[in-house]
Amino acid sequence: MIREGRAAVLNEAGKDAEIIDITLDPPGPGEVLVKLHSSGVCHTDLTVKNLGGNGMQFPIVLGHEGAGTIEEVGEGVSHLKPGDPVVIAYRAPCEQCPACRRGDPRHCYMALRPKPRIHRKSDGALCSQVLRCGTFATHTVVHSKAAIKMPAEMPLDKACLIACGVVTGVGAAMNTSPVFPGARVAVIGCGGVGLSVIQGAKLMHASRIIAVDVNPTKLQWAKDFGATDVVNAREVDPVQRVRELTDDGWDGGVEFAYEATGIPVCTEQAVKMLSYGGTATTIGFPAADDAVNLNLGDMATGVYWNKAALHVCHCGDALPSHDFPLLAQLYLEGKLELDRMITQEIELGDVEAAFHKMEEGNVIRSVIRF
Amino acid sequence: MIREGRAAVLNEAGKDAEIIDITLDPPGPGEVLVKLHSSGVCHTDLTVKNLGGNGMQFPIVLGHEGAGTIEEVGEGVSHLKPGDPVVIAYRAPCEQCPACRRGDPRHCYMALRPKPRIHRKSDGALCSQVLRCGTFATHTVVHSKAAIKMPAEMPLDKACLIACGVVTGVGAAMNTSPVFPGARVAVIGCGGVGLSVIQGAKLMHASRIIAVDVNPTKLQWAKDFGATDVVNAREVDPVQRVRELTDDGWDGGVEFAYEATGIPVCTEQAVKMLSYGGTATTIGFPAADDAVNLNLGDMATGVYWNKAALHVCHCGDALPSHDFPLLAQLYLEGKLELDRMITQEIELGDVEAAFHKMEEGNVIRSVIRF
Repeated sequence: MIREGRAAVLNEAGKDAEIIDITLDPPGPGEVLVKLHSSGVCHTDLTVKNLGGNGMQFPIVLGHEGAGTIEEVGEGVSHLKPGDPVVIAYRAPCEQCPACRRGDPRHCYMALRPKPRIHRKSDGALCSQVLRCGTFATHTVVHSKAAIKMPAEMPLDKACLIACGVVTGVGAAMNTSPVFPGARVAVIGCGGVGLSVIQGAKLMHASRIIAVDVNPTKLQWAKDFGATDVVNAREVDPVQRVRELTDDGWDGGVEFAYEATGIPVCTEQAVKMLSYGGTATTIGFPAADDAVNLNLGDMATGVYWNKAALHVCHCGDALPSHDFPLLAQLYLEGKLELDRMITQEIELGDVEAAFHKMEEGNVIRSVIRF
Repeated sequence: MIREGRAAVLNEAGKDAEIIDITLDPPGPGEVLVKLHSSGVCHTDLTVKNLGGNGMQFPIVLGHEGAGTIEEVGEGVSHLKPGDPVVIAYRAPCEQCPACRRGDPRHCYMALRPKPRIHRKSDGALCSQVLRCGTFATHTVVHSKAAIKMPAEMPLDKACLIACGVVTGVGAAMNTSPVFPGARVAVIGCGGVGLSVIQGAKLMHASRIIAVDVNPTKLQWAKDFGATDVVNAREVDPVQRVRELTDDGWDGGVEFAYEATGIPVCTEQAVKMLSYGGTATTIGFPAADDAVNLNLGDMATGVYWNKAALHVCHCGDALPSHDFPLLAQLYLEGKLELDRMITQEIELGDVEAAFHKMEEGNVIRSVIRF
């Protein structure tokens, strides 16, 4: 029973993560200790590194896109046993909020909040865990309902990607604003999440998937992952171009537009790209003061006359216990591409280099192998 | 076979409607000639009177909330016969647009566009008909699929209200953003449409219906029609008050907020009133330059963190052939209140006085009896 390990820990916003020794409390009732196999490096970790953890106490164990095996189970855990392969969900339903109480756990207000169980070995200081996960670590303790069992055949270095970027993007197109077969879709922003929206739209049998970005590398990825058209928003007005590409003798536009950048103007563009009655979905994190200005009364692209809907996607509106195994199955059946999402495999000590690479914008995912 | 009548006609934007003699062409293929029994006076008619008909050619026969009986059917019409009681739908699906083609006629891009068939008797000038109806007239010609048969027991002076105000409001709560049983609902604006939203929310078994207006008379109506709470937005901040009234130990707010005023700030308020994952629905017509500014990143009421959805309601997302008889049935069963929506019965010549009364804000509906 190993309750010691190593982790990438943030001591202060804006500083480099430090690789330190950790100790772990035994898992409490309903908790599990997970031996990590792999963890994706997600943009949210970079945001926490740069800005701090939104009130989370330092030191903070980074990482929330992890897969591994159960090492030890706490009291009352009967659905998992040591050795079981799992993906860790950062948004497993809390079972207490109004949405959970009405049987709508996909729209849970928050998430299970287990106790933090990781300590800095040097002084015993209790660490926070990013999004209650903390997967930039050889070991972590999470709520057992946030440890989602994987099929035995699922490779864990691919499975970890499901936990955040993939479920968010695919879920946007499957759950938040489900694409109907034959629909026309635009995706703004073609990083890990945007590429996953493209995959989700393809899985839902969109007739047209138009990828929008300002980075030619990302537009090439978009094509590789299933976009039928690409639009470089630095070269043309993306709203006008999407409407031209979808001109059908009516008003043109797409039935679904997904924004995966977190840039407010991209949400405004997504709304303006819609055909009558279409739905724009905003996925990317905004800053506190970010706002969108939406015209209502313009006959062609105004929200009112175009009957546009605006939705927000949090983690693909996923129900991890259902959706994680489903996505693994789709991968195993060759319907969901994960291999090519891994730009590089790295070691825990390479996490800072991976952040820098992410900032350069030429990486889909770096995956830490433990 | 009567093909002559009287109508309230607008010759110029901003002028009074003129009561004139008209002649009607025989109904063309697929069309019907309707002898009007009653017509509600709706805000949209007032807007047309004040601003003109958005490109419609003068003279314009006003009115679009009409009920009557079939007088004559055109070639190929087999589902209606003279004497049948009908309500006229201004938004009967076109059967040609992308939404209709994909079997989603509730979200039809436009509506059936029959030929205008009414002439000014004095000079034969062809008249436009507001929203392809023209119900401020003793007789009109409309598309047969826009003439929806009523149950024989349904009083036509009540039935006419279904055509616009009632189906828009009830439909917002039943179709556009369907209230789930037990949900908390806010309704901003308590005229004919807002009161119908309140009725729709009640029919869908909302647990709480909070009415917001600045007019005490309208707030009293709201109570009469089923609001559980009223908020005078002139006296208190309606967003704060709605959140207080719904404080449940979580973040408070309502699962559904409906805006029935057409005032952009009311849509912004509707969005800010939502509980996590709630849906705001905007119903009222905006002006061309109207816009809403929606904060994304505020933790409590920002669109992103509060996971707010914004929907637009056009005519209650109704399918008239299904929803009009349903609403009539609900009326006949005593579940939908129409009688008390009729503030006054008037004659065709009283239409200008009815407009003035509407502008004063103390009328739910004036109904013209022919």
